[in-house]
Amino acid sequence: MPSLTADLETAAGIGADPRGGVSRFAWTPELARANEWLMQRLAELGLEVELDPAGNVLGRWQAGAGKAVLLGSHLDTVPNGGRFDGALGVLAALDVVRRLKAAGVEPTRPLWVVSFNDEEGGRFQTGMLGSRAFCGDCDLEDWSGRGVPEAMAEAGFDFARLVDARRLDRVGAYLELHIEQGPVLERAGVDLGVVTAITGMLGFRARFLGEANHAGTTPMELRRDALAGAARAVLALRHEARSRDDMTANVGVITAEPGGFNVVPGAAELTIDVRSPAPKGFARLEPFVRETLERIAAEEGLGLELRETHRKEPAVLDADLQDGLEAAAHDEGASTLRLPSGAGHDATVLAHHVPAAMLFVPSRGGLSHTPEEFSTPEHCELGARALARAVRDLIS
Amino acid sequence: MPSLTADLETAAGIGADPRGGVSRFAWTPELARANEWLMQRLAELGLEVELDPAGNVLGRWQAGAGKAVLLGSHLDTVPNGGRFDGALGVLAALDVVRRLKAAGVEPTRPLWVVSFNDEEGGRFQTGMLGSRAFCGDCDLEDWSGRGVPEAMAEAGFDFARLVDARRLDRVGAYLELHIEQGPVLERAGVDLGVVTAITGMLGFRARFLGEANHAGTTPMELRRDALAGAARAVLALRHEARSRDDMTANVGVITAEPGGFNVVPGAAELTIDVRSPAPKGFARLEPFVRETLERIAAEEGLGLELRETHRKEPAVLDADLQDGLEAAAHDEGASTLRLPSGAGHDATVLAHHVPAAMLFVPSRGGLSHTPEEFSTPEHCELGARALARAVRDLIS
Repeated sequence: MPSLTADLETAAGIGADPRGGVSRFAWTPELARANEWLMQRLAELGLEVELDPAGNVLGRWQAGAGKAVLLGSHLDTVPNGGRFDGALGVLAALDVVRRLKAAGVEPTRPLWVVSFNDEEGGRFQTGMLGSRAFCGDCDLEDWSGRGVPEAMAEAGFDFARLVDARRLDRVGAYLELHIEQGPVLERAGVDLGVVTAITGMLGFRARFLGEANHAGTTPMELRRDALAGAARAVLALRHEARSRDDMTANVGVITAEPGGFNVVPGAAELTIDVRSPAPKGFARLEPFVRETLERIAAEEGLGLELRETHRKEPAVLDADLQDGLEAAAHDEGASTLRLPSGAGHDATVLAHHVPAAMLFVPSRGGLSHTPEEFSTPEHCELGARALARAVRDLIS
Repeated sequence: MPSLTADLETAAGIGADPRGGVSRFAWTPELARANEWLMQRLAELGLEVELDPAGNVLGRWQAGAGKAVLLGSHLDTVPNGGRFDGALGVLAALDVVRRLKAAGVEPTRPLWVVSFNDEEGGRFQTGMLGSRAFCGDCDLEDWSGRGVPEAMAEAGFDFARLVDARRLDRVGAYLELHIEQGPVLERAGVDLGVVTAITGMLGFRARFLGEANHAGTTPMELRRDALAGAARAVLALRHEARSRDDMTANVGVITAEPGGFNVVPGAAELTIDVRSPAPKGFARLEPFVRETLERIAAEEGLGLELRETHRKEPAVLDADLQDGLEAAAHDEGASTLRLPSGAGHDATVLAHHVPAAMLFVPSRGGLSHTPEEFSTPEHCELGARALARAVRDLIS
């Protein structure tokens, strides 16, 4: 008897990493095997199956008229990743079709299932390549510089045909079930989360420049300690993020140079990652970071180099689809919470083009991107049932 | 015509490093050549010359009765070091003998010149090996574990005979001329510095332990950010050192783990170097560091591992010798300043056994341990003349 739980178990065995977890990267034999398996399941349900020029797996239930409702997520993983991140959304989409077919539903519009290629982007630092190609958001010059053409050729694909993966015009809505990858739902004791927006991300590399000096012979008042500036930046970013409810901030990497215990740091470098799911809040991030670091540098008598490293605008999810998912969840007996997503997803890309929505399943301990990633079978099944119910309304 | 300035120039050519500066390490041919040159100069002045079992060069002007006045410093350098650090004190001692002999002085007590071996300790992390052996402060077990016996054997020395280098019983006072290696004298526009004490050093490696988490999906209030604790420690140490006049503090090395821009640091490690030249101030350092870091860890909900890495007690220099050096400097027309030494010297070792004193010459820009290290010939000669005058009083 096929079921979502059984499918999750089967998929976890494809690309199982001997060091733990699952390792399925874009354009590799491991992901190809997972795609092959998925295409067989989709075909068994009578869908038109395609492996598109971007390596996305598509299953089309062509019925009725108009634009399709698209359901999906991704089957690629981070190294030693968990079995739920991405796979849950793809296999839930498969499960939705199975349920609706079993219930004899006759759609008034097409229902599509997708497994987007290369969502994680770890192999070539090319996040969401598949969904971007699907939407026509290709960045061919950047991707070709990262070795994507060579990897595609080796896997039997043609980089020049990436642009042919655009299917956006035939899609009217996108829905994605995903694990939360954070602790909010578990802490709240809630079954499912209705996602309101997907956070915008802004990144910098900051370098404070002072003067390297002997740590014993240089009087304190004559020091220009670059690490003191960096330490103040760490705390100022955290203070702002704690005092606003629409912002997170993180410094994950820090170094002091030249790096001797007895040398006053002449330079200190740090990464800055600030996020906000609200477009207004997101717009405030860059001026805040710049003004804060410039003020600290001036007060400390330090030089400052600030370089933007990444920027992803926040994506607001569709209000009607949110309402539909919430009502469906309640009809399935699930308790729900509305929350923003602090991580990026394929839905981020789709939401900039079509109405999109996401439903979250609780993550045990908030853990993800590790073999310890876990969500209960009950929550996963509940999420899939709520998704099926919402989809049924959309295609009836 | 021999002079201190000419000798400094000659010595800088022995072990001149093609990458810049001077590289003369313990038990190497470069240092042996410098020692050989020095021994010839000492012999020419009629001194009894010895290369002792610890590789120290000794020149003895045996005259009068009683314990010797010992003058010196070291000829070994850091990699690509400057030409003044150490060499100035050795060559000034040579110059003092030359001046006193030329003036027809007949000492009432012995006057010795020494060039201590391996003051820098860079090759085997064995600082002040020569002066420690001279004073009977050998740490044979530690040194043998660091490869000293093998290096000594290769250079024609016998590790088992290190203990025979003890000459302390025949010494009554120690004087050392040295460059300041800091900016205080230059900033004050003063010719010479009379050193009051040599700073005590205390070092730790601190490790804050939090919880690694996703930087986007973990709400700010649920984070246990180890780097935030480390940043607070950096600033708390600096704040204390700035508000006390007998303390310096430095964090020269810092890391965050796992070290991803999008991961909240689960661990953060830093080095701590705190110094005080005052025995009372030094005694307050350890409780201050422990209490401060433990308080921060508790407030942040972090674990803390704190490991002592080094400890050197401060050395108080002899008040009478300080007065003598100051008076001699003034008689030579030099302006002076009393100041503690923020760096360690051979005098630190001697001062724990016999009355000891140091005279500092200004360092341009406070720079040392670099080819850019520089002190003017005028200041160097002035320091040597003041030293000669003070010594003349001691041996008359």
